[in-house]
Amino acid sequence: MDLELITIGDELLLGFTVDTNAAHIARTLADLGIRITRRATVGDTPSDIVDAVHDALARTGAVLTTGGLGPTADDRTHESLASAFARELVLETAARDALAERWQRRFGQAMPESNVRQFMLPAGAEVLINRHGSAPGIWLENETGFVATMPGVPREMKGMLAEEIVPRLIARMAARGSTPDTATVVRSRTLRTTGISESAVADHLAEFRRAVHDVPLSYLPGLDGVDLRLTLSGHTARDADARLELAAATVRQRVGSWVYGENDDDLAALVLDLLRAHDHTIAVAESCTGGLLGGRLTAIPGSSSQVLGGVIAYDNRIKVEQLGVPADLIAAHGAVSEPVARAMATGVRQRFGAHVGIGITGIAGPGGGTPEKPVGTVWVAVDVDGTVHAVKPVLPGDRAEIRFRATQIGLDRVRRVYGQMADTPGWTVSAARPSVVAS
Amino acid sequence: MDLELITIGDELLLGFTVDTNAAHIARTLADLGIRITRRATVGDTPSDIVDAVHDALARTGAVLTTGGLGPTADDRTHESLASAFARELVLETAARDALAERWQRRFGQAMPESNVRQFMLPAGAEVLINRHGSAPGIWLENETGFVATMPGVPREMKGMLAEEIVPRLIARMAARGSTPDTATVVRSRTLRTTGISESAVADHLAEFRRAVHDVPLSYLPGLDGVDLRLTLSGHTARDADARLELAAATVRQRVGSWVYGENDDDLAALVLDLLRAHDHTIAVAESCTGGLLGGRLTAIPGSSSQVLGGVIAYDNRIKVEQLGVPADLIAAHGAVSEPVARAMATGVRQRFGAHVGIGITGIAGPGGGTPEKPVGTVWVAVDVDGTVHAVKPVLPGDRAEIRFRATQIGLDRVRRVYGQMADTPGWTVSAARPSVVAS
Repeated sequence: MDLELITIGDELLLGFTVDTNAAHIARTLADLGIRITRRATVGDTPSDIVDAVHDALARTGAVLTTGGLGPTADDRTHESLASAFARELVLETAARDALAERWQRRFGQAMPESNVRQFMLPAGAEVLINRHGSAPGIWLENETGFVATMPGVPREMKGMLAEEIVPRLIARMAARGSTPDTATVVRSRTLRTTGISESAVADHLAEFRRAVHDVPLSYLPGLDGVDLRLTLSGHTARDADARLELAAATVRQRVGSWVYGENDDDLAALVLDLLRAHDHTIAVAESCTGGLLGGRLTAIPGSSSQVLGGVIAYDNRIKVEQLGVPADLIAAHGAVSEPVARAMATGVRQRFGAHVGIGITGIAGPGGGTPEKPVGTVWVAVDVDGTVHAVKPVLPGDRAEIRFRATQIGLDRVRRVYGQMADTPGWTVSAARPSVVAS
Repeated sequence: MDLELITIGDELLLGFTVDTNAAHIARTLADLGIRITRRATVGDTPSDIVDAVHDALARTGAVLTTGGLGPTADDRTHESLASAFARELVLETAARDALAERWQRRFGQAMPESNVRQFMLPAGAEVLINRHGSAPGIWLENETGFVATMPGVPREMKGMLAEEIVPRLIARMAARGSTPDTATVVRSRTLRTTGISESAVADHLAEFRRAVHDVPLSYLPGLDGVDLRLTLSGHTARDADARLELAAATVRQRVGSWVYGENDDDLAALVLDLLRAHDHTIAVAESCTGGLLGGRLTAIPGSSSQVLGGVIAYDNRIKVEQLGVPADLIAAHGAVSEPVARAMATGVRQRFGAHVGIGITGIAGPGGGTPEKPVGTVWVAVDVDGTVHAVKPVLPGDRAEIRFRATQIGLDRVRRVYGQMADTPGWTVSAARPSVVAS
């Protein structure tokens, strides 16, 4: 089944709002075997909305819209559809009364008259309930096809899509003899790698080039690492999943321990899982990342059983006083150096009584770089029970990118140590310095 | 001048990529007085590209595209345009040679033959240089209008838009007697508030409703607070700026110290500016925010002169050992309590030798809430030179939202203290506890 999407709103055309709804809708429908073949974005101008709807109905006869359902004068989607379908606008009293009652209950006063406008709907339209907001959507159909409207607010749109639109689309496909079991879908599966360059991943997969067992493969480098996306279309969901499983297994086998997860997996959450399995705790000592690593770890619900906390040691004096980094190490090697990173990791591990300590010190830029230590130079050290691992990447990107990449490197080392994986180039491993232990 | 945008790529239609280019292009062109009247998104299918181009040329005669310029088989924008304009595809040798030379210089080897494909361009097209990537764009014109193509990679698109497209659009407008000085533009200006609800802001602005001195006003609630956007269209840039200035001054006067900045201003950066003006330093003690506040402050380049660092005190033992929070306070009041937040702020300020300490402890959820302290309950304390300010908001949203809002509340208190602004409801102010001072 093919379908077109029309997103409506001056906000979108003017660039005040980035349209994230379209991607969510596309991914949701792809799972049902429904393909969005075209998307149009128009402003809150009835003639433009009518034109776009006419064009889309003529091409595919199946149209979803987002936006323009609210109570204000520039919300004109439903009046435009009434015009496109040559229907009267009529007051949908049941939906209006339900909102008026909710309003009275919640705010203890009558619903403002201005809210009534959003219940003026094209005659004959089916009302789609909005559980997360006040403006209803509609499902409108004639001999040329159907149009279904959703709000533009992402939370409201997602609810209506799942609760009202998807069931109707499935029923419609079933009526045509197509079900989610027999429909062909677009399915994808992403294997996430970190610590390895795009070209090095490609070397591991050299024999496959752009497809693995006929499943097309894309390389998507990002801040977390290089994602490998396998995408398959034209198969039923069951068949696609089996082929993706085979291709993913082959990629995992070839790329090995560089793969840390799949799809939306977050390395911080995976590291916490590993620590939890050992009932171990972690503490962080952050200079250039300034709390970002702690923030990533504690973003995960339930992290409090593994994360003790950390020290943001932005100032060198704090490194000495709060982490026990010997001042002579900083004087001799500079704050961005292997001995200091190691002393930070060991210092926070010991002072906090954790099993694992991570220390990060670097030059995130834009200022502060030198010929010997250019912007992007970062020392990352990981102390696991007294064995300290350290590495000095020179990271690409701007300040935010360098900081994020540094947290990823520290987390990945913990993953490798706890997962007993092969060592990776560039790291040195040795025992914690006694002088730090004593401080 | 009106213009249409066509964004091209299966990635966009499938929802693998969120289209951020469209918003950037719209904002850039709005400043020149160019309005995007419609946007279409199509896949990498030549017939769909040709249809979309024909439709857009027929409507406005001025079309920009993004995407589909690369070297792979699914990059088909230029061959589609050759077909739409009935031109041959010819090899643009100068651009190819320039890339081949760059390739040789950078990688020390010959450019792969596959790269040549992206230099097959419609005959008669003007080449648009891509300084940030390898695929060139084109400017193609006939009696029905023009189409200009840009890459889909945001960095490459931004460069080509600024360096190649904008100058040509300005020249084109000038040829029609319109210049950036005389063209009518869409201009907006956003005043950022925090710590006040949307309805309370609206009460301050009750006399204006939806426009201030005829400048339309929108309320945009978000995690930072409620943004107030003034948007004006149909005036020259100079006239619009003057009207916006007047409207903004009125909003500032009515809403007062709830306004902390404009447009993309970040409260963390503004707080650092205030501290810098006093040559003061700050340190943070974070429980539920787990490093997020430190991360926000240190995200700002140059923050190292004001930010000493902080303690991520996720575990209660760390609050006692690293911040000197008396264990009896935690036992008596719980970790999420006013005395503990105050002791955290004072503890980190004193131990780090800072002028300002911020302490945050709360229940970010999804678990951990109780009837007395539901999810979203947060205590925020700010110690400025021994005077401690504390507040207990119950914050809405999910875990990430609650955490971010908590950092904003702490930062805003520092802004108010240093800006000598009016006090805000809910805060208690008193001297730091001696017991913490002594620890």
